[in-house]
Amino acid sequence: MIAIGVPAEGSEEPRIGLTPETVKKLVKAGAKVTVRSGAGLRSHFSDDDYKEAGASIAKSDEDAVSGADVVFTVRRPSVELAKAMKKGAALIGMLDPFSDTAGLEALAKTGVSLFSMELMPRITRAQSMDVLSSQSNLAGYKAVVNAAAEFERALPMMMTAAGTVPAARVFVMGVGVAGLQAIATARRLGAIVTATDVRPAVKEQVASLGAKFIAVEDEEFKQAETSGGYAKEMSDEYKKKQAELVAEHVKNQDIVITTALIPGRPAPKLISKAMIESMKPGSIIVDLAAERGGNAELTKPGEVAEHKGVRILGQLNLAGQVPVNASSLYARNLQAFIEPFIDKETKELAIDWDDELAIGTAIARDGAIVNERVAGGKTS
Amino acid sequence: MIAIGVPAEGSEEPRIGLTPETVKKLVKAGAKVTVRSGAGLRSHFSDDDYKEAGASIAKSDEDAVSGADVVFTVRRPSVELAKAMKKGAALIGMLDPFSDTAGLEALAKTGVSLFSMELMPRITRAQSMDVLSSQSNLAGYKAVVNAAAEFERALPMMMTAAGTVPAARVFVMGVGVAGLQAIATARRLGAIVTATDVRPAVKEQVASLGAKFIAVEDEEFKQAETSGGYAKEMSDEYKKKQAELVAEHVKNQDIVITTALIPGRPAPKLISKAMIESMKPGSIIVDLAAERGGNAELTKPGEVAEHKGVRILGQLNLAGQVPVNASSLYARNLQAFIEPFIDKETKELAIDWDDELAIGTAIARDGAIVNERVAGGKTS
Repeated sequence: MIAIGVPAEGSEEPRIGLTPETVKKLVKAGAKVTVRSGAGLRSHFSDDDYKEAGASIAKSDEDAVSGADVVFTVRRPSVELAKAMKKGAALIGMLDPFSDTAGLEALAKTGVSLFSMELMPRITRAQSMDVLSSQSNLAGYKAVVNAAAEFERALPMMMTAAGTVPAARVFVMGVGVAGLQAIATARRLGAIVTATDVRPAVKEQVASLGAKFIAVEDEEFKQAETSGGYAKEMSDEYKKKQAELVAEHVKNQDIVITTALIPGRPAPKLISKAMIESMKPGSIIVDLAAERGGNAELTKPGEVAEHKGVRILGQLNLAGQVPVNASSLYARNLQAFIEPFIDKETKELAIDWDDELAIGTAIARDGAIVNERVAGGKTS
Repeated sequence: MIAIGVPAEGSEEPRIGLTPETVKKLVKAGAKVTVRSGAGLRSHFSDDDYKEAGASIAKSDEDAVSGADVVFTVRRPSVELAKAMKKGAALIGMLDPFSDTAGLEALAKTGVSLFSMELMPRITRAQSMDVLSSQSNLAGYKAVVNAAAEFERALPMMMTAAGTVPAARVFVMGVGVAGLQAIATARRLGAIVTATDVRPAVKEQVASLGAKFIAVEDEEFKQAETSGGYAKEMSDEYKKKQAELVAEHVKNQDIVITTALIPGRPAPKLISKAMIESMKPGSIIVDLAAERGGNAELTKPGEVAEHKGVRILGQLNLAGQVPVNASSLYARNLQAFIEPFIDKETKELAIDWDDELAIGTAIARDGAIVNERVAGGKTS
């Protein structure tokens, strides 16, 4: 019978990788689940909620993980925690595989198998396990809500007896999962929304959400658009023209939300100091790439920076600001990933190391790093 | 030629009663406008903006008001400011007419004519001058935005690859201008919205915004609903049944927004401690009546109170949190009020003291309180 253990996260992380809902499903699938007392509190899941769902409560992280075949975390845990685990047990979480490689190697040396959910292959079968999507979606929502809370005007147009309040202009840079949800949320709130992305193919998605795509629509763009190219690199000449258009566009925006992240690399700089200075005092930038240094030149990760009346929100872990939803989705991602690895007959852990999901996410086994994207800091 | 002066507000008030837009209109109507340097900064109106619109900039409040026939303020100013004004000049603002009567009398004794915009008669002609409506509308918007920012879940239902995020439940108590905008904003954000009010007649308005009206719909209610009674007092028996229904309803809400204010009186208590304790941890109450003591039993005016995991936002001056819009609408309200009192020929101030708008709003003239709702602290 597979034993699953869940320790508490550190003070900077309100999310948790297990919810009463997933406890029920895992117990039904044959698992014995143990959770550290109080670990779910910041997502408003009490020990009683977990107990009712069928979990046992452990008094310490060590008690929660020492008998476990599988441990669920949100962030990369300490080496001490891994040492408290059984050799060969699986540690599954967002292990931040491209940072602090030495720390990762120390974790690997404990003999625990490490699975990093950020590396999940982006294939249909793995959609329900895609933690980057589930968390980015919420981050995109929260980016707009936080911008609206900071902004000194209303987002929607309002018709009042004393005249009209104009709608705010919101510009979303980078139309991935977070960008799409940011567009949708800003549209919900009645803003005039524009968006851009290096991939011409997303123009249609942007339009379908009621926003306008900002791009130099020359011949090169039109070819790239129809070829549906996900990653086709545009010419340097095109990039220059596009950058000029975007810089001009940013001047008239009230709120800019940047979402450009490249796995394992520092965030690309999209908003220069000069662009910030071209914006009206009172404008807001929300930088969803703050964790990787930021898309804006003046972003201070974890802080609200202010420059000539423009405020730049560099808050980290926006998904963690809606921990109830973020934990629910993340816990479902983990449950969806582990369930196929529970043997239907014996109910024991049976990782299929040849499965492409295991191959993609496994970064350490038997004391060594096994993932070539991670080993040596390669970023593929 | 009428001279209009505008001093700076105190540190607690980001709004201002004059905008470059209204400067243009007032100058066109024949006025000379002077504004204290920096007075508009917190609404992002610079001295240059005012100058371009046709105003003069004064270095001190005294310089701004000493030559003025009319002074616009947001809040009740100091006696010193009134003393710097000409005898018989008009001071127009939100003078908080039912508080600190002694302070109001001291202001009256300076010989300045006082007009309190909160007392504007609610007649069709005065709709464009209705500061309570213009500011409440924005407060209702901001209440929902602040609740969404504090709330540890998303408001809209989201369909994701990892399953559904459920919509949040928002309950609006008191369906005036603020309540209606709160309903509209919460609906925009995708919440499941319910509302209640002591006036059965507003049921239809609530329904038209896509929200559900919560009321004991017995015979008495149906009669009150169809009679369109604005202020018909319901029976004690009905009130008791309704209170029980609301208490039961509140248990299952994620966000409650209270907006019940009675001019000149402490806010009615709508949410008892027991009701707060019946709510789930993580729930949010936004108390728009915090300035008058609050609609919830545990509201701390100006603070975020927390009780058993329920947070109660008692922020003051929510309209002042969107000062750009709030100042724009408020300045239009003042301009609409004063323009009819500028003589078309001479361009001099010519208050028609027999006009019902002047009668309604004037609270002091020639050194004495002249409004019977205000004199002696009467509350109408």
